[in-house]
Amino acid sequence: MKIGVIGGGQLGRMLALAGTPLGMKFVFLDPAQDACAAMLGEHIHADYHDHEHLRQLADQVDMVTFEFESVPADTVAFLSQFVPVYPCAESLRIARDRLLEKNLFRNLQVPVAPYAAVDSQAELEQAVASIGLPAVLKTRTLGYDGKGQKVLRAPVDVSAAFAELGSVPCILEDFVEFSGEVSLIAVRGRDGACRFYPLVHNTHNDGILRLSIASEQHPLQALAEQYTSAVLEHLDYVGVMAFEFFEVDGGLKANEIAPRVHNSGHWTIEGAECSQFENHLRAITGLPLGSTRKLGESAMVNFIGCVPEIARLAAIADCHVHDYGKAFKDGRKVGHATVRSVDSDTLHRQLDEISLLMAADN
Amino acid sequence: MKIGVIGGGQLGRMLALAGTPLGMKFVFLDPAQDACAAMLGEHIHADYHDHEHLRQLADQVDMVTFEFESVPADTVAFLSQFVPVYPCAESLRIARDRLLEKNLFRNLQVPVAPYAAVDSQAELEQAVASIGLPAVLKTRTLGYDGKGQKVLRAPVDVSAAFAELGSVPCILEDFVEFSGEVSLIAVRGRDGACRFYPLVHNTHNDGILRLSIASEQHPLQALAEQYTSAVLEHLDYVGVMAFEFFEVDGGLKANEIAPRVHNSGHWTIEGAECSQFENHLRAITGLPLGSTRKLGESAMVNFIGCVPEIARLAAIADCHVHDYGKAFKDGRKVGHATVRSVDSDTLHRQLDEISLLMAADN
Repeated sequence: MKIGVIGGGQLGRMLALAGTPLGMKFVFLDPAQDACAAMLGEHIHADYHDHEHLRQLADQVDMVTFEFESVPADTVAFLSQFVPVYPCAESLRIARDRLLEKNLFRNLQVPVAPYAAVDSQAELEQAVASIGLPAVLKTRTLGYDGKGQKVLRAPVDVSAAFAELGSVPCILEDFVEFSGEVSLIAVRGRDGACRFYPLVHNTHNDGILRLSIASEQHPLQALAEQYTSAVLEHLDYVGVMAFEFFEVDGGLKANEIAPRVHNSGHWTIEGAECSQFENHLRAITGLPLGSTRKLGESAMVNFIGCVPEIARLAAIADCHVHDYGKAFKDGRKVGHATVRSVDSDTLHRQLDEISLLMAADN
Repeated sequence: MKIGVIGGGQLGRMLALAGTPLGMKFVFLDPAQDACAAMLGEHIHADYHDHEHLRQLADQVDMVTFEFESVPADTVAFLSQFVPVYPCAESLRIARDRLLEKNLFRNLQVPVAPYAAVDSQAELEQAVASIGLPAVLKTRTLGYDGKGQKVLRAPVDVSAAFAELGSVPCILEDFVEFSGEVSLIAVRGRDGACRFYPLVHNTHNDGILRLSIASEQHPLQALAEQYTSAVLEHLDYVGVMAFEFFEVDGGLKANEIAPRVHNSGHWTIEGAECSQFENHLRAITGLPLGSTRKLGESAMVNFIGCVPEIARLAAIADCHVHDYGKAFKDGRKVGHATVRSVDSDTLHRQLDEISLLMAADN
């Protein structure tokens, strides 16, 4: 089985590490010369719009999957003529556009904060009048890691906001006062079977995920699964999907979905019976899904900008280091570590040790 | 960190899968065009005696390690001039020669069955007279998976035996009536720190390992660690070593050592906190060693000749499939599966399911 992956970053790299033992081979299409997944398969070094090279990819693989949601619609449509693509074009179309995504949530009765489409400064001002401040203006497409968004707190923030985000189609969302952020990693097979990992508590800083802790019997697990199932079924989705929620007043409000393996699921490599990466591959290749059961307690820490000294990380009990092999750069995700433990207190002591190392590097 | 590996088979492949997350890169030197590890790094396609290509390997890596023990002495000596090699030349010299190995065990007071060097048919007859029958005649070097050996049960077996093994230097060993076969996977760091995995019960068939079950508090664990420590210290060994023992009369008799990661340690990928592969890499690169603690119960089944249908294996609870990507061939190790469980009864039910699949394929 040969899998084509659009994008060759760390998610592609971890897919290949999970799929190689299953006898799968990987071809990555990525315009970056130094794509960090490339060392684990073939690398077609081409732009995502390059039909000649997309065709070359399609001709040599059994199916194509995606490492990121901002894949151009044309790329997906072109590939779909020649080879199965998972998740399907419609899933990607919805997930890459915040407005379509929010509309879908609303149609499926998944709670969302008030929002409005914003295509001009005038529409922004109307939306602010209706939704109020504070609110968040986000570009409909191409946002990630806190990029492409702007918090509007006072009327003075509103005047230049639309232009500052590039005068592109946007969405204004009510600023959600949440008590916590959680994500549900779900997987759906080609036969419609679904499995869900335990809800993950996430901590962001500057819009970038820093820490994910897998929860123990979270009271909102069933609700999150219900909302996510509605989306998966509606899209006839195949593969892993991450659904990010805000915890508000003891309930959940939808934030966004990611139609792919997700940073908040990296702990599953060591922390679950079958990882999100293996389960994504099982789903798209039609294999039975693996168990999403947690092995003890687990948490994941992201390394942003640089990876702490590996010898010191490796000295921490049951700490599993993932260095993506990417050049260090401020604000860039270059690695992570997962710690496992039998109980939550020990887990937090291990996390404290990692924090000390990271502080020493900054 | 860039690691050179002599040999590019499944052990090299699993080393690369373990080392890639640590940011390591791999270069494999292997004469086989279809070396199954090659897809996870660079492949220098050359003979083990080819100094030009060995030099090319040495020039681009930080250290060299070995995937098999039958590395020509000259290869090790040549590489050692340019780059650190782990384990050291002396460890390889001993481990690839059954006579030197047995002499070392005897010198270190590790119990061994009676044995004698055999360099001719006349010496074989003397040895049989002294040791008695049944006995096993083995070539001193290049034996693996039951190859290069012959069981002598009756005087009629003796006459042609030396010629049948190619008239090469041999060793005659008393035939050990054992109650079980166990192996100890040990790792020793550059700083001399040692760790040991739980003893593994092994089942062979036609000289090939079929099943390994990690034991729970085996009564001979301490004794096995004592014997293995003596060998590791004597050789100033660095890396993973497997020590195979026979269980005889409630004690242990040494069978052989393998100066490398070992088939009976494959269960550690999913079944231990840190796998034998990661620990070998931690040891040779000077990182702190990882924990050898077992996660619940674990067992590994080898796939010889062919891999059963992956969809059916993947449907078994907590079953982890490893397809080495090698062409199927009778008698060839082409994959394995590890099952994990919370208790031994469940583990045996999972193993029974795998056995049924394998029987269906034969």
